[in-house]
Amino acid sequence: MLDLWRYTLRDLASQLKNLKLKPTKLIEHTLKKIRELNNKLYMFIYVAEDLAYKQAEELEKELEEGVQRSLIHGLPIAVKDVFYTRDMPTTAGSKILRNFQTSYDAEVVGRLREAGAIIIGKTNMHEFAFGVTNKNPHYGTSRNPWDLERISGGSSGGSAVAVATEISVLGLGTDTAGSIRIPSALCGVVGFKPTYGLLSLEGVVPLSWSLDTVGPITKSVEDTALVLDIMTGGRHGFAENLKEEIDRELRFLVPAKIIEELASSEVEGVFWRTIDKIVSAGHKVDYLEDLDWFKHASNSRYIIVLSESATYHLKWIRDYWSMYDPDVAGRILMGYFIPAPVYIHAQRVRMKTIEKFKKVMKDHDAILLPTVSIEAPRIDEEKVQVKEKEVSVRYALLCMTEVFNSLYAPAISIPCGLSKNNLPIGLQIVTEPGQDKKLLKIASHVERLIKRFPKPPVS
Amino acid sequence: MLDLWRYTLRDLASQLKNLKLKPTKLIEHTLKKIRELNNKLYMFIYVAEDLAYKQAEELEKELEEGVQRSLIHGLPIAVKDVFYTRDMPTTAGSKILRNFQTSYDAEVVGRLREAGAIIIGKTNMHEFAFGVTNKNPHYGTSRNPWDLERISGGSSGGSAVAVATEISVLGLGTDTAGSIRIPSALCGVVGFKPTYGLLSLEGVVPLSWSLDTVGPITKSVEDTALVLDIMTGGRHGFAENLKEEIDRELRFLVPAKIIEELASSEVEGVFWRTIDKIVSAGHKVDYLEDLDWFKHASNSRYIIVLSESATYHLKWIRDYWSMYDPDVAGRILMGYFIPAPVYIHAQRVRMKTIEKFKKVMKDHDAILLPTVSIEAPRIDEEKVQVKEKEVSVRYALLCMTEVFNSLYAPAISIPCGLSKNNLPIGLQIVTEPGQDKKLLKIASHVERLIKRFPKPPVS
Repeated sequence: MLDLWRYTLRDLASQLKNLKLKPTKLIEHTLKKIRELNNKLYMFIYVAEDLAYKQAEELEKELEEGVQRSLIHGLPIAVKDVFYTRDMPTTAGSKILRNFQTSYDAEVVGRLREAGAIIIGKTNMHEFAFGVTNKNPHYGTSRNPWDLERISGGSSGGSAVAVATEISVLGLGTDTAGSIRIPSALCGVVGFKPTYGLLSLEGVVPLSWSLDTVGPITKSVEDTALVLDIMTGGRHGFAENLKEEIDRELRFLVPAKIIEELASSEVEGVFWRTIDKIVSAGHKVDYLEDLDWFKHASNSRYIIVLSESATYHLKWIRDYWSMYDPDVAGRILMGYFIPAPVYIHAQRVRMKTIEKFKKVMKDHDAILLPTVSIEAPRIDEEKVQVKEKEVSVRYALLCMTEVFNSLYAPAISIPCGLSKNNLPIGLQIVTEPGQDKKLLKIASHVERLIKRFPKPPVS
Repeated sequence: MLDLWRYTLRDLASQLKNLKLKPTKLIEHTLKKIRELNNKLYMFIYVAEDLAYKQAEELEKELEEGVQRSLIHGLPIAVKDVFYTRDMPTTAGSKILRNFQTSYDAEVVGRLREAGAIIIGKTNMHEFAFGVTNKNPHYGTSRNPWDLERISGGSSGGSAVAVATEISVLGLGTDTAGSIRIPSALCGVVGFKPTYGLLSLEGVVPLSWSLDTVGPITKSVEDTALVLDIMTGGRHGFAENLKEEIDRELRFLVPAKIIEELASSEVEGVFWRTIDKIVSAGHKVDYLEDLDWFKHASNSRYIIVLSESATYHLKWIRDYWSMYDPDVAGRILMGYFIPAPVYIHAQRVRMKTIEKFKKVMKDHDAILLPTVSIEAPRIDEEKVQVKEKEVSVRYALLCMTEVFNSLYAPAISIPCGLSKNNLPIGLQIVTEPGQDKKLLKIASHVERLIKRFPKPPVS
């Protein structure tokens, strides 16, 4: 059996180019692996068996003729089931849309397909992306490959699991509160939420229009930069000079008070050891004291996501209420309680908070904080103990990430260590909106300072 | 006494340039006129007696030194009391803000001032711009110079009256539902609402952020183009080739069904005679049958203005409810009834309506319709008879204009005739969003086809 653990996207692309690795072989391997793992991990809602193989044959032929469309030519990718695909259904993890089939691809899906990527299947997710556990009553709960009794996190959980188990080099996800970063952190992979608007939302089932973002889940920061270049037509050059050394002192901000208040001791331990490595490498870490913007951004995000999701679900909630996960329906229904002026005010507060955030960031390169305040919780847990407090799993999962959706800011989660329970912990790096390229360069640098850990037990 | 009736902005500028007309003389004349007329017409809330004269002296000195900053150098302008002015209070027509003084000018005010305009005073308006009659319980009802028993219309009524009575070459206004076009039509002057966003809203007390626009009221389309060039730094060249003949057939759309349904016979008569002149000049007029977008745009605007104004007034309505005009307070309070998803949906419907509108406009240059469905009503009228129906004065005033705020479209009102009661009727010309320059060129052409009528009895 092929062991892909040590291969980067570039490695695979060069092997495919000279046909040392054939697309059909790779897809056979991938499909076999999905068959083995999917009934343990529940990461795919739909697997494109025949379709994927057929595409691999065509793409192999092109390679034989010397045509390699891009680095992703012939590589399998896993697409969250919220993206329209012209040849597979798009359920958005819901029962309502179980037979929903579009005649066209979401914009980013189309771009990847044109570049030669093979969509191996549509991945499991929290229903309508409105939750962060990936407990899905219709398609099963996607499991964590580090411990099958634990959640993968969500809502892009299936895509994160597919990357963590090396089924695909890229898992496409969406992030409205942390839905890319949270499962990436819990499964030990790299998850990137770009600046709002960098990647098109065209053809994506919405959760909350003004917060939704599209982004990649990959094994490394370099792979993220490479697929981003493909999805954005190369106009930003994210992968250019990415690994060139940064020979100046980087200035980081750490919201220490927030971390002390919200993160579990387990997460804090791994986080501070990572900070030590960064400081030892000659960089500067300042504590961020001025944290008003953090909780304001969180509050405004909450009002906005409830209001906007309730708007989208106007068309279904009356007739199909009982077909929703009760938990998701409950959140949608809350949006109808919100008066319009409260929503509008939240959007205005959000804009002021962004200004404040930019001021806070003025003299620093990036913020560092844990991606998730706890390690992956067990499937049956609804509440978790964080130091002296008992908090809901939902809050513990998203309290570190949601803020940056409100702020339009790009944020990346990279694996930074394992807890005593042998569970991955994610480091989150954040810059100002629009600084995606700078963020990736910093993340790539930090990634090199962190020792890589082994692959998950189930993979 | 100076009779300015026959002078255009260009005429006045050239007289000022060679000091045949001196700024100080002109300001003396203007202030005298205000003293005579303001207790009949109530068009000014604040008159800048000393300040204006002092500025005139300084600007006169510059002219003596051969410096003419722009065509508006040394000319008096009237500013709706909703624009911040660093040297005069800004009441927004309210009691709540009666002592509100900012330390800086609204952006457009600053630009006009830099260009040498003299702010002669702040004009009367409907309280917080939330009404179209200009009946103001705090500062008096601004009267129509064509009949003192009738309203000027609003909410930029004072600015329209100041231009109609030749107190100023420019009246600055804002338009959220027709507040520039309505009083311009009722007072017999030219009122222009540009594409949303063309002129900055910075330093303007808001009514509804996503509908508010800033625009000029002048005596002619050319004057409008000239002051727009000043306010936009000349980057659009609105006045360039404005009067060059249009030697092709223009294709107009007329929403005949809407006009038949909503306009009074009096207004219809004048409107169709104007259309005759346009057709006689060799242009094509098609009837617009597909009118869904018209009422959808109207409905979404209604929800949006209520929601957004309620948001702005959150800070005052609890403590100062009794200080508002009860009519205005009633409208503000309605916004708190609206659920957030209804507001968000209205904004989304609005975007779809804009797409529909652009499709409707595809093969035509502009839409023609009356600006207001009735002639200026009497001050005491709350309801008016329109053909067989009795409708509220509010609805009759704004039903032809509000639609285009929802659609972001530029719209201009030019005087097109007098009713049997000797009251001015306005012709409204509308193009797609962003086509402001084209609209002004068409309006200038149409203006030349219409016989100019005399000045108002009170002036």
